[in-house]
Amino acid sequence: AIAAEIQRLLALPKRPDLLAGQPDFAPAPNGGRALAERHVLVTAGPTHEPIDPVRYIANRSSGKQGFAIAAAAANAGARVTLVAGPVHLPTPPGVDRIDVETAREMLAAVEAALPADVAVMVAAVADWRTADAAGQKLKKDGSGEPAPLALVENPDILAILGRHAQRPALVIGFAAETEKIAEHAQAKLTRKGADWIVANDVSGDVMGGDANAVRIVTADGIEGWESMSKDAVAAKLIEKVADALSPPLH
Amino acid sequence: AIAAEIQRLLALPKRPDLLAGQPDFAPAPNGGRALAERHVLVTAGPTHEPIDPVRYIANRSSGKQGFAIAAAAANAGARVTLVAGPVHLPTPPGVDRIDVETAREMLAAVEAALPADVAVMVAAVADWRTADAAGQKLKKDGSGEPAPLALVENPDILAILGRHAQRPALVIGFAAETEKIAEHAQAKLTRKGADWIVANDVSGDVMGGDANAVRIVTADGIEGWESMSKDAVAAKLIEKVADALSPPLH
Repeated sequence: AIAAEIQRLLALPKRPDLLAGQPDFAPAPNGGRALAERHVLVTAGPTHEPIDPVRYIANRSSGKQGFAIAAAAANAGARVTLVAGPVHLPTPPGVDRIDVETAREMLAAVEAALPADVAVMVAAVADWRTADAAGQKLKKDGSGEPAPLALVENPDILAILGRHAQRPALVIGFAAETEKIAEHAQAKLTRKGADWIVANDVSGDVMGGDANAVRIVTADGIEGWESMSKDAVAAKLIEKVADALSPPLH
Repeated sequence: AIAAEIQRLLALPKRPDLLAGQPDFAPAPNGGRALAERHVLVTAGPTHEPIDPVRYIANRSSGKQGFAIAAAAANAGARVTLVAGPVHLPTPPGVDRIDVETAREMLAAVEAALPADVAVMVAAVADWRTADAAGQKLKKDGSGEPAPLALVENPDILAILGRHAQRPALVIGFAAETEKIAEHAQAKLTRKGADWIVANDVSGDVMGGDANAVRIVTADGIEGWESMSKDAVAAKLIEKVADALSPPLH
């Protein structure tokens, strides 16, 4: 009878793990609702700019930092819209994800998502696209001398948002730099009309990696954060966002 | 005592599933050893050609067809070397995989893998790379008129292999076309010195998809295969390879 009872108990379906798949964040000091009723708009990943039906220009952004920030904002109680370029990452729980490919598609999705309280523009948006993407696959002409690829500038999503009629109260840009990190970030802050620039040095292998050493550039100065995981950068940044919004920024 | 025995039995480590991760192929008619003692060299995926430390030119090849062919060749008893561009795919069991990024790295890996009995060049190798990849991240200069991207032709891996001193007995190329499929494939056969060209129409969404409708172009004519899964194309192609090698080609 005891054996039968043990077998019966062992045969019961396992209880589902209600926390399975949830990000592993420590609860925020105020109970994790620091961004309740806020709308946070995040962009992440690269953009792909077509050359022809099979070729495109890409960049090495993995999307990990942006996805971590979207997860941290959702964890802090915000409604989160994540506009993602082509990446291989699962959608964080509680996040509305919109997939796009090109910079122009990303801009359209960002503008459609407004109004927002906070915009965190993490995506590595392509500065340039090809002047006229070909409808047919380009072929070698046998000359051995391919025509140069004509490029045009893409819309600058961060700068457009920084001066938008529906500008979020807090506009945060990211700057991936390989040299003169702080100097380039400070110039970018002014040029883009952003409140903060999160600058990181991609001269190593940050892109695709799991750790990140960033500097936060604001009108008040530069704050250097020690190297930490991208999840930790996300949690710390969202904490700083919550502090900035309470009391209200404007 | 019975309860204790049940608990002891349940606490034993589970036997490993010896077939876990094996591809789900039906055994070939001859017992699956049709390519025993043959060396099959396969390339798969795209190549990435750097523009600067963060940007690159890519193409939409997922690598699925090439990986399926490598798996089918291993299943037929061959020693398989798979030279793979940047893809998100697991290595098929029994396959030696060499990861590369650029066309020039792929050529070097292919030549290092010779001699081989069969070469199946499935990779979508970039025809062009940038003339001089920049060491620093390229910046916008504010003019709004980016300099065109100068390109140079990459080495033609299939053509090099088709006329190589260590030319495999059977050299098979793939042609991804958006128009004039058969005509382009037949011209490619002659130009590259290949034995067969597997031509597919990528004007739809074959790249990244799971099905493929191909034509096999040889000196004897054109064989059209109905649309089937990439795994089925791989199994049928490897069967045709085994037929061609027995009796010996040359």
